[in-house]
Amino acid sequence: MKCRMCGQQGEVKLTRHNIILCREDFFSFIKRQVRKGIYKTEMLTRNDKIMVAVSGGKDSLVCWLLLEELGYTTFGLHIDLGIGEFSEKSREKVEKFANERGLKYEILDIKRVVGFGIDELGRGRRVCSLCGLIKRYWLNRYAWEKGFTAVATGHNLDDEAGALLGNLLHWQVEYISRQYPVLPSISPKLIKRVKPLYRLEENEIRLYADLQGIDYINFTCPMRRGATGPVYKSALAFIEKNSPGTRHNFLFQFLEEYRYYFKKERRLELKECNNCGMPTTEEVCSYCKFIFRERKNAV
Amino acid sequence: MKCRMCGQQGEVKLTRHNIILCREDFFSFIKRQVRKGIYKTEMLTRNDKIMVAVSGGKDSLVCWLLLEELGYTTFGLHIDLGIGEFSEKSREKVEKFANERGLKYEILDIKRVVGFGIDELGRGRRVCSLCGLIKRYWLNRYAWEKGFTAVATGHNLDDEAGALLGNLLHWQVEYISRQYPVLPSISPKLIKRVKPLYRLEENEIRLYADLQGIDYINFTCPMRRGATGPVYKSALAFIEKNSPGTRHNFLFQFLEEYRYYFKKERRLELKECNNCGMPTTEEVCSYCKFIFRERKNAV
Repeated sequence: MKCRMCGQQGEVKLTRHNIILCREDFFSFIKRQVRKGIYKTEMLTRNDKIMVAVSGGKDSLVCWLLLEELGYTTFGLHIDLGIGEFSEKSREKVEKFANERGLKYEILDIKRVVGFGIDELGRGRRVCSLCGLIKRYWLNRYAWEKGFTAVATGHNLDDEAGALLGNLLHWQVEYISRQYPVLPSISPKLIKRVKPLYRLEENEIRLYADLQGIDYINFTCPMRRGATGPVYKSALAFIEKNSPGTRHNFLFQFLEEYRYYFKKERRLELKECNNCGMPTTEEVCSYCKFIFRERKNAV
Repeated sequence: MKCRMCGQQGEVKLTRHNIILCREDFFSFIKRQVRKGIYKTEMLTRNDKIMVAVSGGKDSLVCWLLLEELGYTTFGLHIDLGIGEFSEKSREKVEKFANERGLKYEILDIKRVVGFGIDELGRGRRVCSLCGLIKRYWLNRYAWEKGFTAVATGHNLDDEAGALLGNLLHWQVEYISRQYPVLPSISPKLIKRVKPLYRLEENEIRLYADLQGIDYINFTCPMRRGATGPVYKSALAFIEKNSPGTRHNFLFQFLEEYRYYFKKERRLELKECNNCGMPTTEEVCSYCKFIFRERKNAV
């Protein structure tokens, strides 16, 4: 099997495009897709100071690496969630990755800033949603405090398509209308959020990480059991297997054309949280409400 | 396990509502859902002369039975597709069902009206779509020629939700905007099409048919192999298993509210087919084009 681009020995098969590539042309493909995504969505400028949220998994590490290679100014933030061995191993992967490449980073210890670890919150769906809330809050707050202008996460095509499917199945029109690889900063304390890998499939990223020799954490969070998130991704993977390209078209047609169907005339009324001062639509932000609740329960 | 309605011994579990019912209350539930669907969508009036498209499967036979029980004027049309033993058995089921209940019906032999059977068209996706074209054409034409005012089909909640999912995944906005349990007659030669079972899940209909002792054909068409239709239904069944009620809410919220998101200002310009005189948007209708093509290939 020859590489579609150069005719040399092929190594990688891209199922959604039904083409074979050699290693070098696969690397170029990956980089080009990220550059294209950034360009198409006007995601980043050369002046952006980008904080990459790195979990230690393949997606966030590849995201960091590619932004660096494309010449952006990056800094890694790893949130240590305090979930026993899983978190220790994740942290090690991030440190090793950054140190080997001379990249700047910081570790934010959730137990220290929040007062307790995620493993103390029980199990199931509720924990995943609380963990998401905590991470979103601290990513934004840390980035704001340190003067970053963008927070980049490793969300890929499968994640984005899965989220879109879930939102459509529940007709979460509000979420659908906001689903985009760039969430602009609509307040000085709300830092722009970007997803540079949104054009890449999970299996492409995994292959890229493997071929680049990236050492990443390869097991899912032990707290995840019972959460429904991956159900939509799995359903899409099943459909994709039956007709390759469906997931790709589903997401990209939405982003390019059909998201406008869900646009609403709406001005988000942002205030500052009475407690922490971060942006919120209510008197007290969801994060502070959650913290009050947990402290009360602990008493 | 007691029946939620009467407290007697329960027999049937409705997973999407998470309730147990006895046989009699299950029958009432089924009937009530059909009546409610007809009422909510203004599907039928007492003056309608309804032609039920009966394949011999559980859905169409249950549809026929319920419309009769609700007091509507019905007539069954079975299209014999000429697919060997499958078609013979299907036809037998319809004849037996109708004769046992004294219902009026007719058999339309595709080989006779079209000139060849479905089994002569090859296999895979293409055949399913051609078979659909032929059936839609003849259901409408037969109903028009005989003076019926509505064509009823046995499409259920799973079918409709699966079709909606498929249309959303491919952003078939035109189809999405028209998806509704009633397709009104927009020309004298285009008979109203209705789906009285759209509020019932497939497993509920199967159970109803079994408990009513209906003898239906229980295997899928042998030509179907390779067609993708059931992929979306299967994906939804997988999601439904993980969170019961999702499919139900997905379809009903769409029908009641979100379908308006996809509405377009559009006047369908209907002409009469130059060949057969039936309604079409082009000079020659899709059915006649197909017939010409097949005859040419046969020469």
